[in-house]
Amino acid sequence: VAEPKQGWTLGELAEILGGELSGPSDVFIRRPVPAGYSDTEGITFAENAKYLELVEKSDVAAVILPESGLESNKPSIRCEAPREAFGRILALVAKELSLSEGIHPTCVISPEATIEEGASIGAYCVIESNTRVASGAKIYPFCYVGENCRIEMGAKLYPHVVLYKNVQIGERTIVHSGVVIGADGFGFFWDGEKRRKIPQVGSVVIGDDCEIGALTAVDRATAGETRIHHGTKIDNLVQIAHNVEIGEHSIIAGQTGISGSAKIGARVTMGGKVGIRDHVSICDDVNLGGRTDVVNDITEPGDYWGSPAKNAQKQIRVLMLIEKLPELMQQIRRLEQEIKELQKKIK
Amino acid sequence: VAEPKQGWTLGELAEILGGELSGPSDVFIRRPVPAGYSDTEGITFAENAKYLELVEKSDVAAVILPESGLESNKPSIRCEAPREAFGRILALVAKELSLSEGIHPTCVISPEATIEEGASIGAYCVIESNTRVASGAKIYPFCYVGENCRIEMGAKLYPHVVLYKNVQIGERTIVHSGVVIGADGFGFFWDGEKRRKIPQVGSVVIGDDCEIGALTAVDRATAGETRIHHGTKIDNLVQIAHNVEIGEHSIIAGQTGISGSAKIGARVTMGGKVGIRDHVSICDDVNLGGRTDVVNDITEPGDYWGSPAKNAQKQIRVLMLIEKLPELMQQIRRLEQEIKELQKKIK
Amino acid sequence: VAEPKQGWTLGELAEILGGELSGPSDVFIRRPVPAGYSDTEGITFAENAKYLELVEKSDVAAVILPESGLESNKPSIRCEAPREAFGRILALVAKELSLSEGIHPTCVISPEATIEEGASIGAYCVIESNTRVASGAKIYPFCYVGENCRIEMGAKLYPHVVLYKNVQIGERTIVHSGVVIGADGFGFFWDGEKRRKIPQVGSVVIGDDCEIGALTAVDRATAGETRIHHGTKIDNLVQIAHNVEIGEHSIIAGQTGISGSAKIGARVTMGGKVGIRDHVSICDDVNLGGRTDVVNDITEPGDYWGSPAKNAQKQIRVLMLIEKLPELMQQIRRLEQEIKELQKKIK
Repeated sequence: VAEPKQGWTLGELAEILGGELSGPSDVFIRRPVPAGYSDTEGITFAENAKYLELVEKSDVAAVILPESGLESNKPSIRCEAPREAFGRILALVAKELSLSEGIHPTCVISPEATIEEGASIGAYCVIESNTRVASGAKIYPFCYVGENCRIEMGAKLYPHVVLYKNVQIGERTIVHSGVVIGADGFGFFWDGEKRRKIPQVGSVVIGDDCEIGALTAVDRATAGETRIHHGTKIDNLVQIAHNVEIGEHSIIAGQTGISGSAKIGARVTMGGKVGIRDHVSICDDVNLGGRTDVVNDITEPGDYWGSPAKNAQKQIRVLMLIEKLPELMQQIRRLEQEIKELQKKIK
Repeated sequence: VAEPKQGWTLGELAEILGGELSGPSDVFIRRPVPAGYSDTEGITFAENAKYLELVEKSDVAAVILPESGLESNKPSIRCEAPREAFGRILALVAKELSLSEGIHPTCVISPEATIEEGASIGAYCVIESNTRVASGAKIYPFCYVGENCRIEMGAKLYPHVVLYKNVQIGERTIVHSGVVIGADGFGFFWDGEKRRKIPQVGSVVIGDDCEIGALTAVDRATAGETRIHHGTKIDNLVQIAHNVEIGEHSIIAGQTGISGSAKIGARVTMGGKVGIRDHVSICDDVNLGGRTDVVNDITEPGDYWGSPAKNAQKQIRVLMLIEKLPELMQQIRRLEQEIKELQKKIK
Repeated sequence: VAEPKQGWTLGELAEILGGELSGPSDVFIRRPVPAGYSDTEGITFAENAKYLELVEKSDVAAVILPESGLESNKPSIRCEAPREAFGRILALVAKELSLSEGIHPTCVISPEATIEEGASIGAYCVIESNTRVASGAKIYPFCYVGENCRIEMGAKLYPHVVLYKNVQIGERTIVHSGVVIGADGFGFFWDGEKRRKIPQVGSVVIGDDCEIGALTAVDRATAGETRIHHGTKIDNLVQIAHNVEIGEHSIIAGQTGISGSAKIGARVTMGGKVGIRDHVSICDDVNLGGRTDVVNDITEPGDYWGSPAKNAQKQIRVLMLIEKLPELMQQIRRLEQEIKELQKKIK
């Protein structure tokens, strides 16, 4: 399985990247490959000795190296920032998932919906009343967009996205397949006999330049809004509960769960499988390690980890002590023995 | 993004709620909003001092207060149970996701399926043979309902639900988008060379008045039934494995996973990310804190927490001792020192 | 909810299984049921005393017993391997989810796609250009198969599967509903002001005889391939990140998450909710207990458990010591007391 044909000579690539060529300029490069991958038409990058070791063992056409410090026998291009240069090659070969312009004839679109000129809507989409899809927005097949939604310019809904209603998707925001936005928040009360549903009447607002990973759920607010601010990126299988607010440029890794009404600051990063308790507040510039549980407010920027979350350095120390519990146990037994001997001597 | 126009005067609302009006009766209220939210046409509620503090800082048209104990300068309605009164306003503005009555012409419905009069089936649904959809049931666009299913009166399948086959959805039960019910249980055996599939021939029965959150998976039984009893509410991204049984009126928060053949009692509550081992049994009236792992049967009602689960009070004590491990370490070092000094003195 | 009629006499079943009949040969058996399940037309199995106890309490038509060691008053068939024999009955009654042969007229298939004779494609599928669907492959309703994919012989995509593009599904591999394969890997870099997307241009290769559980996400590689080798079985709601590689015949339970570029060996088993850090490498024949976090390479086969993962035996010992922390604390206090007394005596 491979993309259709493409390619450059190494000389062409050196020019595109503004880097220094070392080796024959006519080596033919067809695609970027990861470090350590063998592909006689591939180019990779090495930003440090570890990567270079992987590259040297592999059979690859060329490598992007930093301006100094690393040497390779392979044809190479030296650049100031090899990883960024490699990213530029990725961008050269990246191709949008295909979608024809205009509205596919199989779509079921409410006469009260507004589809602006220049929007693309794929096969078998359903778009309900009072919804507006802006120019340049792309909605792939099998999306359901309920009433009263706004899909802003350049936003993308990949195949099989569901927006219930009152959902706003900001400019250039990407929503991956299987995402469900605007389902009922999980709110019930016990009436003495059974659990009764608290109606969920709020909405969801996703800002500009966000990305929502595959199979992530963002519930609508009980009242008011569940809100994700500009530039925040969310991975796959994440749960965002009702009335959550997440600040700008935050990053949330896979399988994380954020409970109702939690408020997350800007530039917060979360590793995988993090859990945030309901109504908790986390300030800006906090980093949470994988599998961290936040059960109390975090008011100081910094690195946190563990369950419950604490300062990451402190957590590592506690963890090391846990590892040493068997030794600790022996130490205590030795002390007991020594005390007994002392007691005997004194008697 | 907001619902179409609606609203009441504060006087009208006081009458609807049967509460005592304080302030001008002609203040116009358009919508319920969360405490702390500023909306000059919004009404919120304060059931305690913490909520009231949030409300007082916000710019809101009116507030629902308890009959005594809290004072506000804002227009207010005093009610016996402010949270419940607020819930009644939520119910006033709540509107069902739109769905036309009858069967949309794009549906692909087996001639051996039975759709009762008064059922609504949206665009692009597929319904297979021997399936019955009862009157008043609503099936939103893009649902797949396999053979031999029963969708009872008033049940709702939101867009993009999949029922494999032999699945029963009880009366008034709500199934959110992206839910998959009846996929193969995860059963394999190692034949010495590779893993071979154990055929999964059972069914799934979901009781009345249940709710299944977005992107939750409920596998069908190997043989017999996977069964969720009346009134149980399940959040998003939950995994319910083959042959699991969950009692009535239980509540299971997001990203929890329940392994094969586990038996869960009635009125059990689980926080987020709980894990239940296969074949484990949990009695009625058990509460499991977030991220708890249950690896042995629980036979006594009560609160449990931790990994593995233990009595919540005991778990908190253990956790506090873990936090104190650095001190413990120092204490032991001090004891060692004191013993050495004693040893010197005695020699 | 039950499958249409089927059945055998106990004598017929004994012959099919090659087992020894005990009791009347004309007992009518309609279906296999789990041990402990009451069904007067059901047959179950007991491979040990615990199962037999369950069976004896239930009202079932017959039971499969081992050749010796267990006795029952119920009609029975004695077989060498009761569980395997029961599996054979499961296979007798197992029926494929229904799907008509050929291409449903509602499908939207690119003229540049190739659908081989003998493939079945259900209602409302979208198949894009340069994709090939092999003979005997089954694609159920509402699947989206992007450009340049390969669906090999006998592969099954259940309803509502999404393959972005450049995805290969091996022979006889089963992909359950709600699975998303080939979404963008989660790669961003901080440019000093905001997070920028690293283009994801790679592909996904799933081998033969694999199974991918409902609502699991497998991201495509940044460059190169995300790869799952032959015979590996993956449960529901699992996250497989970009550039991950998983060896043959591995088994991965629900809600596990494997981060970018991790390399997993052959015959590795993972319990539920396991987390694997990015770039980590795990050798063949490793077993990871539920909720284990692997943060460093594992280079020795064996059983591992905990967060972070360690040898399972060692982990159990540490866990038992944690449980004993309250006692440990008391012990230390007692030692302190004894030392004080010694100090007094010596003074």
